[in-house]
Amino acid sequence: MSSNINRQFRLKSRPVGKIKTTDFDLVEEPVPTPGPGEAVIRNLYLSLDPTNRIWMSDMDQYMPPVEIGAVMRGGGIGKVVASNSDAFKVGDTVSGLLGWQDYYVAGPNDEIPVGVLPAELPVGLPTMLGACGLTGLTAYFGLLELGKPKAGETVIVSAAAGAVGSVVGQIAKLNGCRAVGIAGGPEKCKWIIEELGFDAAIDYKAPDWREQLEAATPDGIDVNFENVGGEIMEAVMARMNLFSRMPLCGMISGYNTDEPMRGDFSPILMRRINVRGFIVTDFLEKYAEATMELATWVATGKIKSQETIVEGLESAPTAVNKLFEGENLGKLVVKIADE
Amino acid sequence: MSSNINRQFRLKSRPVGKIKTTDFDLVEEPVPTPGPGEAVIRNLYLSLDPTNRIWMSDMDQYMPPVEIGAVMRGGGIGKVVASNSDAFKVGDTVSGLLGWQDYYVAGPNDEIPVGVLPAELPVGLPTMLGACGLTGLTAYFGLLELGKPKAGETVIVSAAAGAVGSVVGQIAKLNGCRAVGIAGGPEKCKWIIEELGFDAAIDYKAPDWREQLEAATPDGIDVNFENVGGEIMEAVMARMNLFSRMPLCGMISGYNTDEPMRGDFSPILMRRINVRGFIVTDFLEKYAEATMELATWVATGKIKSQETIVEGLESAPTAVNKLFEGENLGKLVVKIADE
Repeated sequence: MSSNINRQFRLKSRPVGKIKTTDFDLVEEPVPTPGPGEAVIRNLYLSLDPTNRIWMSDMDQYMPPVEIGAVMRGGGIGKVVASNSDAFKVGDTVSGLLGWQDYYVAGPNDEIPVGVLPAELPVGLPTMLGACGLTGLTAYFGLLELGKPKAGETVIVSAAAGAVGSVVGQIAKLNGCRAVGIAGGPEKCKWIIEELGFDAAIDYKAPDWREQLEAATPDGIDVNFENVGGEIMEAVMARMNLFSRMPLCGMISGYNTDEPMRGDFSPILMRRINVRGFIVTDFLEKYAEATMELATWVATGKIKSQETIVEGLESAPTAVNKLFEGENLGKLVVKIADE
Repeated sequence: MSSNINRQFRLKSRPVGKIKTTDFDLVEEPVPTPGPGEAVIRNLYLSLDPTNRIWMSDMDQYMPPVEIGAVMRGGGIGKVVASNSDAFKVGDTVSGLLGWQDYYVAGPNDEIPVGVLPAELPVGLPTMLGACGLTGLTAYFGLLELGKPKAGETVIVSAAAGAVGSVVGQIAKLNGCRAVGIAGGPEKCKWIIEELGFDAAIDYKAPDWREQLEAATPDGIDVNFENVGGEIMEAVMARMNLFSRMPLCGMISGYNTDEPMRGDFSPILMRRINVRGFIVTDFLEKYAEATMELATWVATGKIKSQETIVEGLESAPTAVNKLFEGENLGKLVVKIADE
C-alpha cells in the first residue's frame, strides 16, 4: 500500500464549464516525512462530491476556494503510516480533507481536523465515506432537522440515485413518508424503487417528466430535498404544499456555469414554503449520535448503501464529472490504494 | 354618509401590466337590504394593497382570484347601517373584505368574517387599516416571528416608505437593531430617517444604489424583510450573513408581469439563509395581543403611523397604481364616505 512518490493533483486553472484534466497539474513529490506534531497518512479512498466543483471555482462558497497551485481539496479515508503526533498512531484509520494525492500530512494546521475512525468498523471504508459518512449525515440532518417530515407526507428528492439522495429517500421511508425520487434514466428509476424502496420515480431525461412528476405527487409535495436546481426545481416547487419545507442541499445543475442559480420565488411566497440552505457541518454537535443511527440502519439492512468505485488516483479529474453527468450510482469514490 | 345607490367596481378583464380603469365596470346597484342573518355596511375607507393586483390576476395565489364580473375584493372599514344579524348592530364600526363598493352585505357567506371594532378606538379609522390593522400586523409578525431580530443586528426592508415597510423599520429600532430602508427618491429616504428613525436609507432610483447598499450595511444583513423582489432583492441577498433570515412578504416588482419572479438561490445555499413566505393570516391566533401592542406603540408615539388618503371610491382603480409606482407614503387608503 505504500509507494515512493506522492502524486498530487494541483489546481492549475479554474475550470470553465466541465472539469478538464488540463485544469490540473499532476506532480510527483517525495513521500513526506512528518514534522513535529504531524502524522503522514497514506490515502486509500477519495470522496468525490459536487462541492469539489465549487471549491475549484472562485464563486461565493462555504470555504475558501482552492488556490491555484494548491493540492485539490477533497475528503478521504486513509491509514497513518508515520506519526510524531499524540493524536495519531501508525495503523490508525482516519478520515478528513486528505486531498487529491497519495499522502497527506495531518497536523495542527489542518483546515478541518482529521478524525480517527474506530478500530472495528461495522461497514467497509467506502461506506464510511457514503451512507455512514458526511454524505449520509447530509441526508440525515437535511431531511430530519430541516425537512421535518411527518408520517404520510410526500418527500421528494432530486439526484435520487446519487450519494445523498439515495439515503434521503430511504430515511423518508423509515419515517413513514411517501418517497419520490427524481433520477436520470429508466435504470436508475427502477433501482431506487426496486432496490431502495422509493414509492415513485421521475425520469428527468424522459420527455414526459412533468407528467411523471404530477402523477407521482397526487397530494402535492410536503418536503423537497433539493440537490439540483434549475427548471426541475421550479417544477417541483410549483407542486409544493402550503407550509411545506425545502432543505436546500445543492444546485448541482448550476455548478458548471458562472450564471446565477435563479429560480421562481413566488411559490415560497404564495405557499409559505420554508427554504433553508445548509451544509452538514452546521450540525457538527450531533454527528456522533446520527452516525451511530446511520451505521445501525446500514448494518441492519434498513438502509442500503451503494458506492461506485473508480480505480486509481489518476482517474479523479475525469471521474468527478460523473457527478454532473449522472453516471454514478450512490456514492462516488476513487480507490487510491489497497487497504 | 348614506346614498341611494351602491356603486360597485366589478372586474371586467384581468389587467395586462398596469391596472387600467377599463379593467373594471363601474355599475350602480340599489343599496342592498339585509336578508335573514345579514347586515348592510356603509363602506367608509378602502385599503389599497399590492395584493389587490394579485387578486385581479389568475396567478397562483392565497385566495381564489376575483372572478370576472364580480365586485373587486378589498379590505375596508365601514359602519353598520342595517342589520338582521345578532353579530352586528346598527352603528357598529367593522372591518373586513368589504370590496370596492359603497355598501357591503355581511353575513354567514363571507369569505372571511367581518369583525366589529371596539367602540372606543385609540387611533383614527385610517390607522386601523394601517399601522394598527393588517398592515401593521404583517410587519409585526413577519419581522418578529420569522425575522427573529436580535439587538445589534442589521434589518433591511424594501418598500421602506410604504405601509408595511415603514412599520418594519420602526419595530426593528424598538428591538435594538440597525434599521436600513430601501425607498424610491431622496424625499422618502429623508423621511424614513428623519421622521421614522431609520439608521440609513438606500434610494433605489439613484444610479449608485448598489454603493449605497454596501455603505448602509457594513456588517452585512441579518434580516431581509422582502417586499419587492427583482434585482434589488438579489443585491440584498448577496449581502446577507450566515444563518440570516428572510421573511418573504411580497415581490411587488413582479406583480404587473406574467413572468416568474426569479432570483438567485445560491446565497440561500451558501449562507444558509432561512427564507419563509408568509401572509398575515398565518398568525391569526396572535392578532389580539399583537394589535394591542401596535396600538400602544402608536398611541405612545413609539411608532409613527402615516397614511396617504385618496378621496372618493371612483379613484380606486387609478389610485391603486400608486403602490406600484411608489407614489404613496405609508398606508394608501381611499376615503369612500364621511364617518
